[in-house]
Amino acid sequence: MAIRLDEIVARLGGELHGDGALLISKIAPIESAAPGEITFLANPKYQAKLANTRAGAVILSPALAADCPVPAIVHPDPYLYFARLAQWLSPTPPAPAGIHPHATVMSELPQTVSVGAGAYIGANVRIGANTVIGANAVVSSGVTIGSDCRLYPNSTIYYSCRVGSRVIIHAGAVVGSDGFGFAREKDGAWVKIPQTGIVIVGDDVEIGAGTTIDRGALADTVIENGVKLDNQIQIAHNVRIGAHSALAGCVGIAGSTTLGKRCTVGGGAIILGHLTIADDVNISAGTLVGKSLSEAGTFTGTVPFMEHADWLKNFARLRHLDSMADRIRALETRLNELESKK
Amino acid sequence: MAIRLDEIVARLGGELHGDGALLISKIAPIESAAPGEITFLANPKYQAKLANTRAGAVILSPALAADCPVPAIVHPDPYLYFARLAQWLSPTPPAPAGIHPHATVMSELPQTVSVGAGAYIGANVRIGANTVIGANAVVSSGVTIGSDCRLYPNSTIYYSCRVGSRVIIHAGAVVGSDGFGFAREKDGAWVKIPQTGIVIVGDDVEIGAGTTIDRGALADTVIENGVKLDNQIQIAHNVRIGAHSALAGCVGIAGSTTLGKRCTVGGGAIILGHLTIADDVNISAGTLVGKSLSEAGTFTGTVPFMEHADWLKNFARLRHLDSMADRIRALETRLNELESKK
Amino acid sequence: MAIRLDEIVARLGGELHGDGALLISKIAPIESAAPGEITFLANPKYQAKLANTRAGAVILSPALAADCPVPAIVHPDPYLYFARLAQWLSPTPPAPAGIHPHATVMSELPQTVSVGAGAYIGANVRIGANTVIGANAVVSSGVTIGSDCRLYPNSTIYYSCRVGSRVIIHAGAVVGSDGFGFAREKDGAWVKIPQTGIVIVGDDVEIGAGTTIDRGALADTVIENGVKLDNQIQIAHNVRIGAHSALAGCVGIAGSTTLGKRCTVGGGAIILGHLTIADDVNISAGTLVGKSLSEAGTFTGTVPFMEHADWLKNFARLRHLDSMADRIRALETRLNELESKK
Repeated sequence: MAIRLDEIVARLGGELHGDGALLISKIAPIESAAPGEITFLANPKYQAKLANTRAGAVILSPALAADCPVPAIVHPDPYLYFARLAQWLSPTPPAPAGIHPHATVMSELPQTVSVGAGAYIGANVRIGANTVIGANAVVSSGVTIGSDCRLYPNSTIYYSCRVGSRVIIHAGAVVGSDGFGFAREKDGAWVKIPQTGIVIVGDDVEIGAGTTIDRGALADTVIENGVKLDNQIQIAHNVRIGAHSALAGCVGIAGSTTLGKRCTVGGGAIILGHLTIADDVNISAGTLVGKSLSEAGTFTGTVPFMEHADWLKNFARLRHLDSMADRIRALETRLNELESKK
Repeated sequence: MAIRLDEIVARLGGELHGDGALLISKIAPIESAAPGEITFLANPKYQAKLANTRAGAVILSPALAADCPVPAIVHPDPYLYFARLAQWLSPTPPAPAGIHPHATVMSELPQTVSVGAGAYIGANVRIGANTVIGANAVVSSGVTIGSDCRLYPNSTIYYSCRVGSRVIIHAGAVVGSDGFGFAREKDGAWVKIPQTGIVIVGDDVEIGAGTTIDRGALADTVIENGVKLDNQIQIAHNVRIGAHSALAGCVGIAGSTTLGKRCTVGGGAIILGHLTIADDVNISAGTLVGKSLSEAGTFTGTVPFMEHADWLKNFARLRHLDSMADRIRALETRLNELESKK
Repeated sequence: MAIRLDEIVARLGGELHGDGALLISKIAPIESAAPGEITFLANPKYQAKLANTRAGAVILSPALAADCPVPAIVHPDPYLYFARLAQWLSPTPPAPAGIHPHATVMSELPQTVSVGAGAYIGANVRIGANTVIGANAVVSSGVTIGSDCRLYPNSTIYYSCRVGSRVIIHAGAVVGSDGFGFAREKDGAWVKIPQTGIVIVGDDVEIGAGTTIDRGALADTVIENGVKLDNQIQIAHNVRIGAHSALAGCVGIAGSTTLGKRCTVGGGAIILGHLTIADDVNISAGTLVGKSLSEAGTFTGTVPFMEHADWLKNFARLRHLDSMADRIRALETRLNELESKK
């Protein structure tokens, strides 16, 4: 597939500089892009590479347009423009419509739905048009899935959960497993609390490989529209993730916490349970959040790393931080006394 | 299904206050419970909600019984009572007994066992009565599983592992993968050490979605009775988890560590290898445990999070903690000298 | 299978002490090894156990040879010797060659390849000799896999990825899922950037259960030869892991980071994105790496854990570390002044 530069601008906007008849077949990084390929310059850090690019064309911001040695599409947000163009030039490989003879399907599905080999669709399942169910994926009974979704192989949706439209669920992900809820006997043994809620996933959500989302205990777990979850994230029961929030890999969110809209959470961060996090909060990677946050902002709680020998010296002091503070206060008192005697 | 209040008390105990003929069909949270539904009040924090509840009945402690405006079941542990009642009112959806024609089963199984579509049961496998093997789950050759277990879809048990009765294994979980054991060549290359032990899982264990438990190197990895493992936990080879311990999501336990009985481990905590942790130890979420613990207690090692700008100021100091301690000591010496001159 | 001690030495080297005709059938830990079994003594800590061992023979270093009460194989690296012998004595259980009738295979495969029940092999897939594809594993279209590999059940490889020879991929692992790449609209909504690169996995790599490796955005994600990845590791898009590096469980590496050769990363460590880590770097468990590292060494950044009450006292001080440093400086100034007045 090759597209003319002026076709791109006609569909996606931006301002065309140079030959609109130029044919583009591919997007490539600025260092390696060749003629016939388009690249983008979103990070001013890479501006120096513009002069020597071999790219057929470049997507860049108005400020850099004058320096571009080749045809350009000028747009205030080159990275966003690149994303839209990439979706056009690099569609997800299609899947054949229809039910593979080695699939097991217990519900009636639209003809445009694709069900891969070994996939299992339980009873009373409803699936919207054009949705693709990958090989060996499992959609349990009573589940509802919207249109234009893609479930990758070996993903699992438990019974009765509801998934919106244009949702992507990657391989190994699990939606609707039991929340971790137990009462305790006097002897320490645990009594399981049946998890009778479901998971509700909104539209335009992406759920990464190996990510797990537990069903609610009595109420439901809710992932609002446009949420993006990276790989190996754990969402506990009764959590609510606000619309358009994005969570990086290995994040864990404990039970009954509500995360606001448009939040970002860095990789490996842990948010404890029963908290309320405001809209537009950014949590840094590796941070443990132990209190609710009522206002937008960026929050961090990690320690610097250092050479192991330095770490041994410095971090041993953490065991004595309280006495260090006491000693500073004592010094201040003594010094006050000494000074007052002058 | 609707049950009379006096039927509940006859079976589960507690003291009945009010009309025993009242019919209950469902458990609901105290805020949303409607007539015909029962709720519970376990956390005194929510006591204020009691006056206005629309619930048909409430499970609560003797101290609160006098304030209850509707019929009540009075019990010293309302949460535990709720758990038992919920198990009665909300049984796990049943699975049809028998082997699905799209399953592959290489061993003889009791007639009460249910094997879902696409599931694989290897040779020399023994499975107890009423156990349910979900769609596309894999039980490798030589595995033994007790009765009344449930393996959810896409879970995997490696060869020769042993699983007790009433065990729940959630989707995507893996039991018996190779431990991470290698010797090192002089040039840095790794030589794999065959992992010839197995995993032994006791009775009444629950294993969360995406949780992985490695088989032992020479000896075995052991999960004792009543252990509850949340999602995405990693248990390395030769670990032993004591009976009735409960581990929250994203916990990692390194090789050859023994965790005691009735321990709790908070989400995202890491326990290093070759350690021995006593019974009744509680590890807080996000804590890295690097030493053995010989006595019960609660242990924590996490840093507070703060606004990013404050963090930058405060945490940079961690690199200089050792010199701060030196400077405090120097100040004390100088002040001693100064004071002694008086 | 039983092997003579002199056969072992003939094949694996080392120096034989004692009766070469002794038959060995199994390797066992030094405490439990019985006659007919061989053990090894690699850690001098366990030297005291040598005198009382019931093992038929012991692999040990020259320094300990004189103290061994039973026949011995003497070698400078007993642990490495043990690994090689264990591979001989404990081969991975074989899989029947050929395609199981319940597998779905859309490509032509060598006759020595084994494909388990329910496995799916897409179109245009190439697989080398003797490779074993486990039950319900999914190999998507266009994938290339070398010879003598083993994919365990329920593992998934996305389209077009390339895997070398002698690679082990454990259950639930995912290779080639979409990287986490989005541009952002002004209203906070995310626009997906198609991930058009692949994952390239070298020879002799092991990928643990539940580990996920994302495909590249424009370029590729690369796992070089001999890399060993434990369970539940997350490797983001465009990462490169240098040859013979070994990563413990629950590690996360963010996008576009390059890790050098022969590095080790402890469990639960997080390495942020766009960093370059030199060869032979060791990262301690639980450490967050936020800067590039240009030289070999061991690096750590974790906090000590303590009894919860002590932690409350000490770690609250972290919020005031900056003011503690200011107060020390003020004390020094005042003391200088006082001393200068003498």
